[in-house]
Amino acid sequence: MLLATLLTDFGTADGYVAEMKGVLLSGAPTAQLVDISHDIPVQDVDAARLAFARYWRRFPVGTVHLVVVDPGVGTRRKALAIESNGRFAVGPDNGVLSPALLVPDARAVELSIPHGAAPTFHGRDVFAPAAVRLLTGASLEEMGAWTSEAALLRSPEAQRRPDGGQDGMVLAVDRFGNLITNLTGRGDGVVEIQGRLLRVVHTYGDVAEGEMLALVGSHGLLEVAVRGSSAARALGVGRGTPVSLRRDPS
Amino acid sequence: MLLATLLTDFGTADGYVAEMKGVLLSGAPTAQLVDISHDIPVQDVDAARLAFARYWRRFPVGTVHLVVVDPGVGTRRKALAIESNGRFAVGPDNGVLSPALLVPDARAVELSIPHGAAPTFHGRDVFAPAAVRLLTGASLEEMGAWTSEAALLRSPEAQRRPDGGQDGMVLAVDRFGNLITNLTGRGDGVVEIQGRLLRVVHTYGDVAEGEMLALVGSHGLLEVAVRGSSAARALGVGRGTPVSLRRDPS
Amino acid sequence: MLLATLLTDFGTADGYVAEMKGVLLSGAPTAQLVDISHDIPVQDVDAARLAFARYWRRFPVGTVHLVVVDPGVGTRRKALAIESNGRFAVGPDNGVLSPALLVPDARAVELSIPHGAAPTFHGRDVFAPAAVRLLTGASLEEMGAWTSEAALLRSPEAQRRPDGGQDGMVLAVDRFGNLITNLTGRGDGVVEIQGRLLRVVHTYGDVAEGEMLALVGSHGLLEVAVRGSSAARALGVGRGTPVSLRRDPS
Repeated sequence: MLLATLLTDFGTADGYVAEMKGVLLSGAPTAQLVDISHDIPVQDVDAARLAFARYWRRFPVGTVHLVVVDPGVGTRRKALAIESNGRFAVGPDNGVLSPALLVPDARAVELSIPHGAAPTFHGRDVFAPAAVRLLTGASLEEMGAWTSEAALLRSPEAQRRPDGGQDGMVLAVDRFGNLITNLTGRGDGVVEIQGRLLRVVHTYGDVAEGEMLALVGSHGLLEVAVRGSSAARALGVGRGTPVSLRRDPS
Repeated sequence: MLLATLLTDFGTADGYVAEMKGVLLSGAPTAQLVDISHDIPVQDVDAARLAFARYWRRFPVGTVHLVVVDPGVGTRRKALAIESNGRFAVGPDNGVLSPALLVPDARAVELSIPHGAAPTFHGRDVFAPAAVRLLTGASLEEMGAWTSEAALLRSPEAQRRPDGGQDGMVLAVDRFGNLITNLTGRGDGVVEIQGRLLRVVHTYGDVAEGEMLALVGSHGLLEVAVRGSSAARALGVGRGTPVSLRRDPS
Repeated sequence: MLLATLLTDFGTADGYVAEMKGVLLSGAPTAQLVDISHDIPVQDVDAARLAFARYWRRFPVGTVHLVVVDPGVGTRRKALAIESNGRFAVGPDNGVLSPALLVPDARAVELSIPHGAAPTFHGRDVFAPAAVRLLTGASLEEMGAWTSEAALLRSPEAQRRPDGGQDGMVLAVDRFGNLITNLTGRGDGVVEIQGRLLRVVHTYGDVAEGEMLALVGSHGLLEVAVRGSSAARALGVGRGTPVSLRRDPS
């Protein structure tokens, strides 16, 4: 089964995503298209990167991921096709593909820009055609020249504290208002945020409705949440807010 | 053809839905995934239940519906897999699956929680794997112990009036601002809402542009609408607003 | 491969689109459903028409497009099924299908309304069943009587200026705040909007971050944009704003 996923910041109402889908299905009519999201905040490469980190490896080997959050379209940034862990991805060379590129043995080629490609819409004229080629059996080497100089973005890492804890920050806020941090947790200790101290618990059921808590989220990072409500709203904070983990709270 | 539908309140931008889709397609690569909605208001079990009521039986026999609006994730609420009318559904035991459970001969099992499942993300670690098992031919009895104590939610029913009419309320407001009530209509009588009296008409074309009307909606319930505009905005009302049907208006 | 696309203004949270999908897959279980958008502004026929213009011909021959932005549902407007350029479309006779109807040799039939169809929901009870018939091999002539009187909408055309330029307007604003105009460009000249003069450049990379520019967009129409930001916000303008192209600026 041929699978292609799509992640963009295009919204859907203007028909741009639809144009890409038409190109994909015209070239690979039996492929199943899987929408990831088209609601990434406009030109928010980092939000797209964090989403991509979550899902790219969950899909079957052979899946082709299109990731088109591309504020640099029409500039000199390269267009990439990559292979990592048996999955493929196409997208701009702006760091959005980093989660797959940072895996050992990941490989990347620089796509050439087809003659006549609209300089404002590489999603339709560069990335969708490249995805079609991958879906229909082309190898990376047929599609461009190997490149070893792709842009890489990493989330800032938390710093070790003398007490064995960590100083970090909020990386993202999800739709529920949960604060995803860069603190890595084993499920114990105390999280400090905005002057509040929160014991790390196992799950929402460990606190009462409406109470704030810290726990290890579904990707192994500590999260701050309010059971049944929004921690972001309760604290009035967002991306970048400092947060720390104390192993030995005073 | 294997079909799996997805209804959540996750939004799509954070990548959670994408993780679920990856699990589904890794386990059942030939399944077609059908997005129902990921824009259910956060933790609004009732809105999800009303949407589910509309579509679950419209899909072919054998379809597996995933319904993950789950404010109780990480608490003691059960995880369910059910069969009703030849369709399957997986989701939390919070009443969201009631439309299918209330059908005679519906059957439900309590899913066991896989070792290592993230306590905050049963959509990915409990419900998607259960859906994969159903898609790949497992029977309900293989997946857990029969349970007869599932949470059931029903929309409040309208009350009969001495004049043969009904006293009810607005159950939901749709994107068009139509007010869906719990009044059951045959297409005659007069609807009273906020002091206004509206003759029940057959369709929008029976009134002028901009005029308010009442009619029998696409599920047999009376709706209050404004032709070409929003009744919710015109009246400033929402869920729970009292509304009545008079058979014999004075 | 059977393909059906869906464009509506229903949103997804109410379950209406899901009902349509259930009807489609019950009748044509092997069809792949492709979401175009359900976020068209409510009853905005023109926005839907512009989106439809972008994608309808990008899909493979044989694709069935459902387009249900239908403020006239329940009035006397006709329901159409059309064939154009090998693609099919079903939708209301309100001009939304014009991009396909305006192609030479396009053909249209007036669909009869099935007995019992909800007068408020032709998407489910008229258009989805018609799409199923097309997907399963029916010909247009089996589905209704030929009609040659379909509503047609065209975007206003820019007017020639004595200097060889054009006077036009903003047709649409996309999610990025780009202003899509009805000026047809070859990539030279100067665009005037709100008293500003913008040299037409080739692509975003030709100006600095934050600078306003004009360029030929991905459909051959001139667009006004701000690199890395929103021209709509910068200028405080929207659909209908006058804009002109000067070939020989003073």
